[in-house]
Amino acid sequence: MNRIDLNADLGESFGAWRMGDDAGVMPWITSANIACGFHAGDPSIMRATILLCVQHGVAIGAHTSLPDLQGFGRREMNIAPDEVYAQTLYQVGALHALVRAAGTQLHHVKPHGALYNMAARERGLADALARAVRDFDPTLILVGLAGGALVDAGRAAGLAVLREGFCDRRYQPDGSLTPRTRSGAVIEDIDGAVAQAVSIATRGEAVAGNGASVRVEADSLCVHGDRANAAAFAERTRRALESAGVRVAAPGRPA
Amino acid sequence: MNRIDLNADLGESFGAWRMGDDAGVMPWITSANIACGFHAGDPSIMRATILLCVQHGVAIGAHTSLPDLQGFGRREMNIAPDEVYAQTLYQVGALHALVRAAGTQLHHVKPHGALYNMAARERGLADALARAVRDFDPTLILVGLAGGALVDAGRAAGLAVLREGFCDRRYQPDGSLTPRTRSGAVIEDIDGAVAQAVSIATRGEAVAGNGASVRVEADSLCVHGDRANAAAFAERTRRALESAGVRVAAPGRPA
Amino acid sequence: MNRIDLNADLGESFGAWRMGDDAGVMPWITSANIACGFHAGDPSIMRATILLCVQHGVAIGAHTSLPDLQGFGRREMNIAPDEVYAQTLYQVGALHALVRAAGTQLHHVKPHGALYNMAARERGLADALARAVRDFDPTLILVGLAGGALVDAGRAAGLAVLREGFCDRRYQPDGSLTPRTRSGAVIEDIDGAVAQAVSIATRGEAVAGNGASVRVEADSLCVHGDRANAAAFAERTRRALESAGVRVAAPGRPA
Amino acid sequence: MNRIDLNADLGESFGAWRMGDDAGVMPWITSANIACGFHAGDPSIMRATILLCVQHGVAIGAHTSLPDLQGFGRREMNIAPDEVYAQTLYQVGALHALVRAAGTQLHHVKPHGALYNMAARERGLADALARAVRDFDPTLILVGLAGGALVDAGRAAGLAVLREGFCDRRYQPDGSLTPRTRSGAVIEDIDGAVAQAVSIATRGEAVAGNGASVRVEADSLCVHGDRANAAAFAERTRRALESAGVRVAAPGRPA
Repeated sequence: MNRIDLNADLGESFGAWRMGDDAGVMPWITSANIACGFHAGDPSIMRATILLCVQHGVAIGAHTSLPDLQGFGRREMNIAPDEVYAQTLYQVGALHALVRAAGTQLHHVKPHGALYNMAARERGLADALARAVRDFDPTLILVGLAGGALVDAGRAAGLAVLREGFCDRRYQPDGSLTPRTRSGAVIEDIDGAVAQAVSIATRGEAVAGNGASVRVEADSLCVHGDRANAAAFAERTRRALESAGVRVAAPGRPA
Repeated sequence: MNRIDLNADLGESFGAWRMGDDAGVMPWITSANIACGFHAGDPSIMRATILLCVQHGVAIGAHTSLPDLQGFGRREMNIAPDEVYAQTLYQVGALHALVRAAGTQLHHVKPHGALYNMAARERGLADALARAVRDFDPTLILVGLAGGALVDAGRAAGLAVLREGFCDRRYQPDGSLTPRTRSGAVIEDIDGAVAQAVSIATRGEAVAGNGASVRVEADSLCVHGDRANAAAFAERTRRALESAGVRVAAPGRPA
Repeated sequence: MNRIDLNADLGESFGAWRMGDDAGVMPWITSANIACGFHAGDPSIMRATILLCVQHGVAIGAHTSLPDLQGFGRREMNIAPDEVYAQTLYQVGALHALVRAAGTQLHHVKPHGALYNMAARERGLADALARAVRDFDPTLILVGLAGGALVDAGRAAGLAVLREGFCDRRYQPDGSLTPRTRSGAVIEDIDGAVAQAVSIATRGEAVAGNGASVRVEADSLCVHGDRANAAAFAERTRRALESAGVRVAAPGRPA
Repeated sequence: MNRIDLNADLGESFGAWRMGDDAGVMPWITSANIACGFHAGDPSIMRATILLCVQHGVAIGAHTSLPDLQGFGRREMNIAPDEVYAQTLYQVGALHALVRAAGTQLHHVKPHGALYNMAARERGLADALARAVRDFDPTLILVGLAGGALVDAGRAAGLAVLREGFCDRRYQPDGSLTPRTRSGAVIEDIDGAVAQAVSIATRGEAVAGNGASVRVEADSLCVHGDRANAAAFAERTRRALESAGVRVAAPGRPA
């Protein structure tokens, strides 16, 4: 039987500003990546998001970022691996303390935005990130782009990894994502995105922009929490996966 | 035999800016309060300061603050206890992760600057702070002004506490500190400050500005790391305490 | 003929976060207070908001704040008048440059949130703020709470001032605003708020919570841009004022 | 008679942190680039630095940066020209207001660190920066690396420009600077740096690392304020230039 994790990036409000529909998405996902204050989130919002996860039995992960609140962590930045190492520990630890105080435990770490892309591409940064996670807690799961450098770095560091696939991003024939700067990067059509989710989960395949079939081996699918009708999209994806006989669940942490 | 902890506020550099003489002070103290990024410090500086503590066998504490980098955490701010609760967990957790990755453990928590003063005065804030520490780890030690509300709040929360006294701040006849806005608030003279340290450690007494003897029951003495000749002052204080037969050591964490 | 300015606090988005319905409110107001990056706003958002003001012929003001992005400038903070002086110049100047580059000119300065309240109460801060505005450009108009210290400070500094009244805040019998921490502080009912606007503009009066009539001499009325249906509320207020024979217009700057 | 401007980057303290020896360097330079709060500086420090410039008759420029306080503006960042346009206006305007309140006027704009390097290389960013300066005040002078894109962009925008050379950076045979990541990038030897300053000012030449003579046409020489003995270095450079018959002065702004 096929099995997949359904994750979303949540807790991306900040101070007086609200973003996303966390409460609407939460019932349909199995793991949440919570912003840790570097691109979004603040201590009070992190805490509220954790409580929401506890209420819905959703596995909690740290969504770490470059330090760039105004740019929402989306600007690539020239940063040394040593800094990424320390910044990862800082953010994971901050979330961990709030998680522990809420009586539960941390499940995984997934970098955000520009850091996610850089860690998928640059092995040096990926290694720094993976070592930070391992040095803090070797039973945490590391989440990275399927086929990217972070997955390799996590394995090399002895961590359990989750390879991430995307429901609503268009793949290129070589298995990489169509850059957001190009048209057609996002599958706006809900039916198309849901179909891609089912195809990845059941057959390990997506259809590239040119119609070719492309291999996507993913353990977790990302449901974007900031797209229009995010809650409805999460619900439809969840139901479609279950109808297709896929077990939707977060993996347990290694013993 | 009398016993006292000798602490200093360290890791107060930030980014490209340097503050204090951490390496010079470190050999003479027994516990360090490390800034956690809210008033000073950044992940890389926190890490470097932790490594210095490990090297010198100095107990490591989180020096938590109001979020005010530009004001160095010295501006009192109208903040809700719930926010202090979440911010305390955030900062303690951030430092904890870096500490754990360095192969050692966290020892205590001491608020900084305006938050220290507010927590000594306002029981609601003090309770929020103490609960945050307890909810994260009930074996951490809470450090607060001797005679202040934070010490009471820590005890009420079931935490071990350290009552802090000051070598170079002039006490008032009622046992409170002379506010920094008044002249004579700081004992600039090194001999006078060292004498006050010995007097507090051996007799539980200091001499107020008006010459009256005042009771100061302290378990830890603060050596200001940012005063002129901080290293020399720390050394002289340490040697004078030991010459007076005081055992200078950080207390162990509760089992 | 009665005349009044209708103002709103706009440009309060930040980075990736959106707040308020600036485009919906803009057609109905005569002056806008634009956030300058200390409590909200960033250079790109400031620029976009200025262009929207130019398009609608709305007078542009600097909405200056304490430096507190996470607290949205709503936390009172212990800050020295000299710092407020320099921070006011910084923020007014930042907005002024974007305004000048857009081919128009700055009209007024109005402090935000906690700074607004502190400047209405503490003459020392109010003087620092007024001097900053005058030292930059003595023909700018200073906006403060009707009856508050900032209005006095502005006049003493030789500035033209606008006394601000509120459509949807409940006044107390002594003319002050009911604190937001008390119930009934905001007039949620649109009809009631519109009626208060007309009453202030035509008779210089509002009705306090206890039913007593209270004198409110205001030159400008604030339409809160972040309340529910802000655009509809602004439109109804504007239309009701004009139906009551009030000329709704921003005053010109002194020659 | 040869003539050159001698500039230094000043006002790089922040909050409680101090950097550089502004007071020591000030008597020997003719223009100062003042940090505007994005990589260093805050409103109070900007104001104090301006007053120091006024006292010494030093021309005042805005030292604009990418928004990166923790990284001191030294991390290259993927940023859109439109953002640089708005950020430049914001920073130049903030300094301008403090300058005007001090009774003097702004003289020039020079980008800092990573932004300086990016603007020397990428014409799109350079154009955005130059347009921001021109749209605010077309009589401001734009300072950029001699031979870099910013100088071209400034001229294309109709601005007066200053081509900057460096006393203590080693040039490469093609006229570019040896990257700081390579050994020999900085001329640590004071005599060597002073000799290079005189050589550039009198003959428009420097000696590259390989001994070859390289053409450096500069109107302004940068004295690094953060190197060891910055004041002594500035003094020696100034005296050596004057002894070599060079007139050391900031150019006037265009009418």
